Amino acid sequence: MTTASYTVRKWVKPEDLNQHGTLFGGSLLRWIDEEAAICAIFQLGNDRLVTKFISEINFVSSAVQGDLIEMNFSVVKFGRTSITLSCHVRNVLTRDEVLTISTIVFVGLGSDGLPVAHGLTDATQGSERVPFRESRRLG
Amino acid sequence: MTTASYTVRKWVKPEDLNQHGTLFGGSLLRWIDEEAAICAIFQLGNDRLVTKFISEINFVSSAVQGDLIEMNFSVVKFGRTSITLSCHVRNVLTRDEVLTISTIVFVGLGSDGLPVAHGLTDATQGSERVPFRESRRLG
Amino acid sequence: MTTASYTVRKWVKPEDLNQHGTLFGGSLLRWIDEEAAICAIFQLGNDRLVTKFISEINFVSSAVQGDLIEMNFSVVKFGRTSITLSCHVRNVLTRDEVLTISTIVFVGLGSDGLPVAHGLTDATQGSERVPFRESRRLG
Amino acid sequence: MTTASYTVRKWVKPEDLNQHGTLFGGSLLRWIDEEAAICAIFQLGNDRLVTKFISEINFVSSAVQGDLIEMNFSVVKFGRTSITLSCHVRNVLTRDEVLTISTIVFVGLGSDGLPVAHGLTDATQGSERVPFRESRRLG
Amino acid sequence: MTTASYTVRKWVKPEDLNQHGTLFGGSLLRWIDEEAAICAIFQLGNDRLVTKFISEINFVSSAVQGDLIEMNFSVVKFGRTSITLSCHVRNVLTRDEVLTISTIVFVGLGSDGLPVAHGLTDATQGSERVPFRESRRLG
Amino acid sequence: MTTASYTVRKWVKPEDLNQHGTLFGGSLLRWIDEEAAICAIFQLGNDRLVTKFISEINFVSSAVQGDLIEMNFSVVKFGRTSITLSCHVRNVLTRDEVLTISTIVFVGLGSDGLPVAHGLTDATQGSERVPFRESRRLG
Repeated sequence: MTTASYTVRKWVKPEDLNQHGTLFGGSLLRWIDEEAAICAIFQLGNDRLVTKFISEINFVSSAVQGDLIEMNFSVVKFGRTSITLSCHVRNVLTRDEVLTISTIVFVGLGSDGLPVAHGLTDATQGSERVPFRESRRLG
Repeated sequence: MTTASYTVRKWVKPEDLNQHGTLFGGSLLRWIDEEAAICAIFQLGNDRLVTKFISEINFVSSAVQGDLIEMNFSVVKFGRTSITLSCHVRNVLTRDEVLTISTIVFVGLGSDGLPVAHGLTDATQGSERVPFRESRRLG
Repeated sequence: MTTASYTVRKWVKPEDLNQHGTLFGGSLLRWIDEEAAICAIFQLGNDRLVTKFISEINFVSSAVQGDLIEMNFSVVKFGRTSITLSCHVRNVLTRDEVLTISTIVFVGLGSDGLPVAHGLTDATQGSERVPFRESRRLG
Repeated sequence: MTTASYTVRKWVKPEDLNQHGTLFGGSLLRWIDEEAAICAIFQLGNDRLVTKFISEINFVSSAVQGDLIEMNFSVVKFGRTSITLSCHVRNVLTRDEVLTISTIVFVGLGSDGLPVAHGLTDATQGSERVPFRESRRLG
Repeated sequence: MTTASYTVRKWVKPEDLNQHGTLFGGSLLRWIDEEAAICAIFQLGNDRLVTKFISEINFVSSAVQGDLIEMNFSVVKFGRTSITLSCHVRNVLTRDEVLTISTIVFVGLGSDGLPVAHGLTDATQGSERVPFRESRRLG
Repeated sequence: MTTASYTVRKWVKPEDLNQHGTLFGGSLLRWIDEEAAICAIFQLGNDRLVTKFISEINFVSSAVQGDLIEMNFSVVKFGRTSITLSCHVRNVLTRDEVLTISTIVFVGLGSDGLPVAHGLTDATQGSERVPFRESRRLG
């Protein structure tokens, strides 16, 4: 299977901090779920998907205001209606690992809200699977 | 050991939805981490704490705009420097379970940022452990 | 009449502060209105409601970043189409009262947007009045 | 006494709505408190101030997404350490009154956090009372 | 042509700051676009409009937490389907210019999403062009 | 000079929409400024920087809820104290260009807040220039 990976960077800002000035865990989890979902859409070519499973999370180090966080997602495998990703997060400034999640599963849904088979077995690095929508050019 | 539990309700609003109008998983995880932290502060009497571990999460059902979500936290056990909570989330309107997290671990830190022993073994339902701060009365 | 009360805790974060680091009054009012509305839905069993009246508000003390705020709501009375709640807010860390609002009135609306008689006279501590919605289980 | 008034317009966006698509009361109260505070700073020339009192609020009409809200603030009087404003809110598109608050009191504080006498008796339409700060020109 | 201008003030809060405590440029651009759009709606009487063009922006000075920013918008001219505004931003506390944008163009759209001729040539200071919507009075 | 580019994807959510359901221009400008700043930090190795100049912006097409936006940044040149980037934004689902900004200039500052010479002439694809900070490992 072809591997595919996607890297996103975040800047820790005041709104992401708990009261002692360290990165709020829930803020980080929100970023991970959102970016992993974008990654899954590019792979499944279906933007109607839901988070189904997240494996255990061990917080190894933290971050403070102004730190840069780098999240890297890899495709682990394709199920019948699902895709499994892994996520590795590091603090670019301290060079520390922040956390690793070995398994994040998204399920693609049909217009009836039920899981739908996607027939895919290989990852892509491109955007050719993304559904086409009509142009919205201005004037 | 005395059991203690804490219940919080959330109203699903537009800002918590993904593009198909269902509750964004990352938004729910952010709520859980924040409310669990508040619960841990009341137990440890230390507001300098960090999320250390979250066990696996299986998303059983979802929610849409206007649904009411009820999160219930229970104290599982006290470690030397940590506290372990569990979390059960249900959708009040559909009466469905949304998810269950069996283990959320917070560690209390000292002013040097290192884990500090708390000497506690029992849960409380009150707020008597919360650190006292000077009054901020207006005029 | 059976009394019913509901308590919610909030953690004061950077986004809730004015420029001198004290809790922004408008942020507190937003929390109160949102939590009071949730409380009213559980009592009226109608989630189509609007804030109709808030009695005068005297800010007795303030809060700073990291303070814990506890809001307590009680059912005062039921009108023909309305419910009246009271709200008491305290700062858990300073043990000070923050403010008290004796009267917050919500009116329940029908699908036509007009006030609708609810026929209720007693408060409940449970969630049995909340409207039932169809399950949204995943797969 | 010279009268002074200040008008601000807001556009009702998805993040300001409750689940039935009408303007969330708490969102409106947050806008009012923030804009009233800005107004008070221009009058007192002191940006260290706190909301001390808000008189009763009667919600006369509502707003939906895309409505334009106009908030008008007037100076009512100056106390020894305080300033009293009134606020009138209307929905520009429906031409309806939304609410009126006859009394919003802010108190100016000194660097010790205690109320400080301001010696003012008249309102201004200008910005000449605002404290001067050192320039922050770029290069 | 009658000139028309509109002034709005913003208070720089923690959520608007970059990691070194100065006003985030993107936050300022977001304010400008939103307030310019409100201004354009009052002139065109059409709330279905899109930003079409923004001329170059030279950031002359910055702002820090607690500074007050004053944005002033003027109508420059009316095109066949468009309106052109200019924007001048200053820091009230330092008395410095922050930036000037000479040209911001909005285009009014019809219900089909295509540009629509507005037939206007003169600016207004009032709200008489704003489309009328049905009342939403409560009870 | 070695070229370097950086691509970021965003999912258009309800909070980014204007009242007619199209992407709010100010929301897009906020994303661009934030991501361009992150890109500049990796190049300059200095996280104390400010936006100095943005060239004119022509909005060619728009986006609606659920669209995926792809922002691509390239290094154009290094000045004595500055770096110049360009930005190309496209709508992944419609395959349309959204906008192009040929010049975004950031200036790196020293601890005194004044522009500081960086001595750089070439772009990097790595993170080796980012300043090192002390580890924040937990326990």
